[in-house]
Amino acid sequence: MSEARMPRICEVAPRDGFQSIAQPLPTDEKIAIIRDLVAAGCPRVEIGSFVSPKAVPQMADMAEIAAAVKDLPARLCALVPNVRGAENAVEAGIGEVCYVFSVSEAHNQANVRQSVAQSLDGLETVASALPESVRLRVDVATAFDCPFEGTVPLDQVLAAVSRVAGIAPEAEIALCDTTGRANPFMVRDRFRAVMALPETVRNTWAFHGHDTFGQGVANALAAWEAGVSDFDTAAAGLGGCPFAPGATGNTATEDLVFAFNEGGLDTGIDMGRLLAVADRIAALPGGVTGSHLRLVPRERAV
Amino acid sequence: MSEARMPRICEVAPRDGFQSIAQPLPTDEKIAIIRDLVAAGCPRVEIGSFVSPKAVPQMADMAEIAAAVKDLPARLCALVPNVRGAENAVEAGIGEVCYVFSVSEAHNQANVRQSVAQSLDGLETVASALPESVRLRVDVATAFDCPFEGTVPLDQVLAAVSRVAGIAPEAEIALCDTTGRANPFMVRDRFRAVMALPETVRNTWAFHGHDTFGQGVANALAAWEAGVSDFDTAAAGLGGCPFAPGATGNTATEDLVFAFNEGGLDTGIDMGRLLAVADRIAALPGGVTGSHLRLVPRERAV
Repeated sequence: MSEARMPRICEVAPRDGFQSIAQPLPTDEKIAIIRDLVAAGCPRVEIGSFVSPKAVPQMADMAEIAAAVKDLPARLCALVPNVRGAENAVEAGIGEVCYVFSVSEAHNQANVRQSVAQSLDGLETVASALPESVRLRVDVATAFDCPFEGTVPLDQVLAAVSRVAGIAPEAEIALCDTTGRANPFMVRDRFRAVMALPETVRNTWAFHGHDTFGQGVANALAAWEAGVSDFDTAAAGLGGCPFAPGATGNTATEDLVFAFNEGGLDTGIDMGRLLAVADRIAALPGGVTGSHLRLVPRERAV
Repeated sequence: MSEARMPRICEVAPRDGFQSIAQPLPTDEKIAIIRDLVAAGCPRVEIGSFVSPKAVPQMADMAEIAAAVKDLPARLCALVPNVRGAENAVEAGIGEVCYVFSVSEAHNQANVRQSVAQSLDGLETVASALPESVRLRVDVATAFDCPFEGTVPLDQVLAAVSRVAGIAPEAEIALCDTTGRANPFMVRDRFRAVMALPETVRNTWAFHGHDTFGQGVANALAAWEAGVSDFDTAAAGLGGCPFAPGATGNTATEDLVFAFNEGGLDTGIDMGRLLAVADRIAALPGGVTGSHLRLVPRERAV
């Protein structure tokens, strides 16, 4: 592994976090928080998801948000669950779409209301229709554990990733620990296994984790050791998955940034400014948070 | 590293945890919890500390506890801060004493009321006076960070460990992250550095960590990767250090056991029984806890 490899955080509070708050937040508040996150040095931000406003009313203002933040100095992406979402994202000027599906049938049905086969067909359509200027990332949800089916067999993950790589050989592929129940040894081994697939030789990799079982930072570092450089986290640990019972709490951005920054792998994120945004996010009514760093005396955190 | 290497948990809730509860617990309750911890499969338990009952009234009943639990099928140890404590521990029939001192002067003064040089002289006395049947472990506190002095220079840690190894070449040496502010890269690097000292070739190693900064599991696994097999944790994450402001929360035994057990490195600890003890500990009035596993739906934890 090159010595020059550095970790990169993708801040997902505006998507995985905001969708977990039942009452939609004011659009201005969302925009202000995205601005603050970029100002704190977050190099990537997932600004929301292009989904049916009937299914997820928290995301009904995506076009307005995209227009307001599009010139910020960060890579901005948005989640899309289907072809329609991808079209809407491109129309809104999004430069990077994250196409999401789950390896396990039960979770894919609950989350995006289609079969895994239908989702993979959809990916094919999206990949071929996407303008060349728009980057594609594929979020492989329940790549470790499914809230309905338990541990997802490795073979199923390998088959899904192999199919994704065949469709989108240059996409970034994120293995997502949707429930937080992965353990660091499993994370390391599964990344090594997907990276060893010959068809993924041109893909790049990301890890999306939750801290529900206390493994959030350790799982991310296990992915780092396996060669993953991109990590989804949410400031204040806001979030969860509305269709994954018990899956409260994305790994807190500040907890993982602490590990990297203090360990000499500077993420470019300023801890003081990040914690100020995390405080703002934690004060949102109805949010469930799970940070460690935010709770220590501030002068010890920065 | 041998494939057969397995992690071993030393449960410290009865010491690092109980001392953090202002109002001393009933002796019977302490004994019952130690019994439950051993019954859950904990292979080592730190049952308390032999300190002045004036300084730490929570530990005034050590002789009675030692007598009650001495035949349990586990390695039982007790913390001692000085020669007097070691004598009392041996007299009480303790088979393993943990002699503690801090690398940083300010914390050593606050914690054991002597200079580092005095503590090292004391270690010399203890090591030479200890019956051959009694094992010696040395807890090197503030081996990463000091609540008063900040990051402790590596050179100071190397000098202290070198001195310890000279005095006790076969002792187990624990590097203690007293405040929880170590990061996984630092933990890995410092263990590699002390293990590379020629004078430590016969010593064995342990890691004592806290989860205050969200690094607890990750730090322990970094130590594991460096070759450490023994880990101090506290059921329910009970505890802290009365002289280290902000240092609430030992790493929860259940959070680290989850990582190892699920990762195929069986600790021998039964998660269901452990969580039952953790619940009992969390219900103690006045305790500060910090578990993740205890809060997920129980059927997902085991």
